[in-house]
Amino acid sequence: MSYNIAVIGATGVVGSEFLKILETSDISINKLKLFASEKSVGKIINFRNKPFKIRALDLKDIEDADFAIFCAGSSISKQFIPKLKGSDTFCIDLSSAFRMDKDFPLIIPEINGDILKTKPKFIASPNCTTTIMLMAIHKLHKAYNIKKIQASTYQAASGGGKKLMDKLIQDTKNALSDLNTKQPFGFNLYLHESPIDETRYNQEEIKVIKETHKILNNDKIKINATCVRVPVIRAHSISMNVEFEKSFSLDDVYKILYSTENVQIVEDYKNNKFATPNDATGKNEILISRIRKDITNPKALDMWVCGDQILKGASLNALQILESLIAIL
Amino acid sequence: MSYNIAVIGATGVVGSEFLKILETSDISINKLKLFASEKSVGKIINFRNKPFKIRALDLKDIEDADFAIFCAGSSISKQFIPKLKGSDTFCIDLSSAFRMDKDFPLIIPEINGDILKTKPKFIASPNCTTTIMLMAIHKLHKAYNIKKIQASTYQAASGGGKKLMDKLIQDTKNALSDLNTKQPFGFNLYLHESPIDETRYNQEEIKVIKETHKILNNDKIKINATCVRVPVIRAHSISMNVEFEKSFSLDDVYKILYSTENVQIVEDYKNNKFATPNDATGKNEILISRIRKDITNPKALDMWVCGDQILKGASLNALQILESLIAIL
Repeated sequence: MSYNIAVIGATGVVGSEFLKILETSDISINKLKLFASEKSVGKIINFRNKPFKIRALDLKDIEDADFAIFCAGSSISKQFIPKLKGSDTFCIDLSSAFRMDKDFPLIIPEINGDILKTKPKFIASPNCTTTIMLMAIHKLHKAYNIKKIQASTYQAASGGGKKLMDKLIQDTKNALSDLNTKQPFGFNLYLHESPIDETRYNQEEIKVIKETHKILNNDKIKINATCVRVPVIRAHSISMNVEFEKSFSLDDVYKILYSTENVQIVEDYKNNKFATPNDATGKNEILISRIRKDITNPKALDMWVCGDQILKGASLNALQILESLIAIL
Repeated sequence: MSYNIAVIGATGVVGSEFLKILETSDISINKLKLFASEKSVGKIINFRNKPFKIRALDLKDIEDADFAIFCAGSSISKQFIPKLKGSDTFCIDLSSAFRMDKDFPLIIPEINGDILKTKPKFIASPNCTTTIMLMAIHKLHKAYNIKKIQASTYQAASGGGKKLMDKLIQDTKNALSDLNTKQPFGFNLYLHESPIDETRYNQEEIKVIKETHKILNNDKIKINATCVRVPVIRAHSISMNVEFEKSFSLDDVYKILYSTENVQIVEDYKNNKFATPNDATGKNEILISRIRKDITNPKALDMWVCGDQILKGASLNALQILESLIAIL
């Protein structure tokens, strides 16, 4: 079978990466339509050796597609997806717009991909930090039941799109030209820029909490997160403490992690070499590192996790959802 | 009174900063002797408008001093301090060499400065991360009794001395010249480089745990830390979750923090502006930010803390110890 695919937000950081991995995938494509905002319309993108012109967003044009992949951010998703309810188009939304909507299953294929067997027309892909975190611990949760997660994040500029990546580079250049000036993002880090609500948590932290509850289908798990933007270009890291209801041995934890799909254990205690965001950059796998029993609590585990925010944190997860749907249809 | 002061390691990052703040202090100095390693011997340093020649390390020369400030690292402290036992010299050691030694009180003047009234001849100044963390919470501990601390750190290059600061800058320049190369410290972060023991904790994390127990004189407090080196030049940050035995209101927490010496609350929830390591750079105060109740535990508090690692984390704490001793003698 060959499919008509629409990519909305095809020129953004996540959209371009999605096209790159779609290009080398086994998916047979009949028609590919690429959409972006005004300023990119008319631009040519090469895909599987053919030129594609970027189109202006148009509902009729999107409706033609078997699959529409929304990589353009919440407001565009909110504007177009509800209007596609009558069409036959499957929508995979990478934005946060409908993640908590009960009509949108929130899918990480390795964790709850089974839901796709019901052939939902609308599917949401989770927040990058949520995905990277859960990839590391979902099988441990099955074995030992997570009671509480305490996470502090080290999130790359890429989470803020090309604009923030450019700002990091420009601020760093400015800082290097005069180290006495203080640049907001040059050799500096800051608490995540998403709005803060009355609980004093920011939206990124709330996403990690609520999306985890939805994906693990369990809102009893206690989750606390502090999200921080660090001067790293592309991959996110998380320092995590996970408390389980059941006891565990470190040996069994390793067995479970070795059997977890698409994660990789990266640690060398002797030489003090552990996963870094640079190691995770460009990798499909989530890297798990510094696995240790919490010195204060035998039922808790400390872990350090790094993952490519643009790949498994976004575009790769969407591609896996698309592949899973195609396999089922 | 006028004092003879010896500074060992006078040309290093901490030593030079110590001289800067000593220079503008009210301490009247009779003789100042500056010591450093071979490669700096003979170098001239100006202090209060007079030139001082850097001397080679020599026990006899140090013994002359009323106060010897050791800023040169563990091995030098281990080599010289035990030999000063018979002399009248007060030794303030900034290295980790004797911090856990029962004959060396471990002092943060704002917290346990009272111990100095016993006129100890040997005094240790704590690890920078320990100091920055405890400055934020010691008065809360008095009010509510800390049960558990869970910390993830964001530690600047300055903690690794000039060598690591230079490496950060060089790696960043290399990364900027070709963003496809992966530089160990250019737009990258990594778990703290100190050796790891059989508990799988690194020495930095163990220091935070043991030194906190010693300074708060309470080894029942559960402390868990993950220490990370980030591409920031000078100031450390800590994401902290602190669980108390007693209940508290956020209002009372603010009252206590406002009355804590040498800390400053920096937060603007409306505009999402919170403390950053750049804000803390060059500041004597520890900045406290994103103070909130843990959404999963009404008896726990989340905090974000930034502090200048070279100032309150090291040289300023040593100067305060020196000033306290002088006030008592």
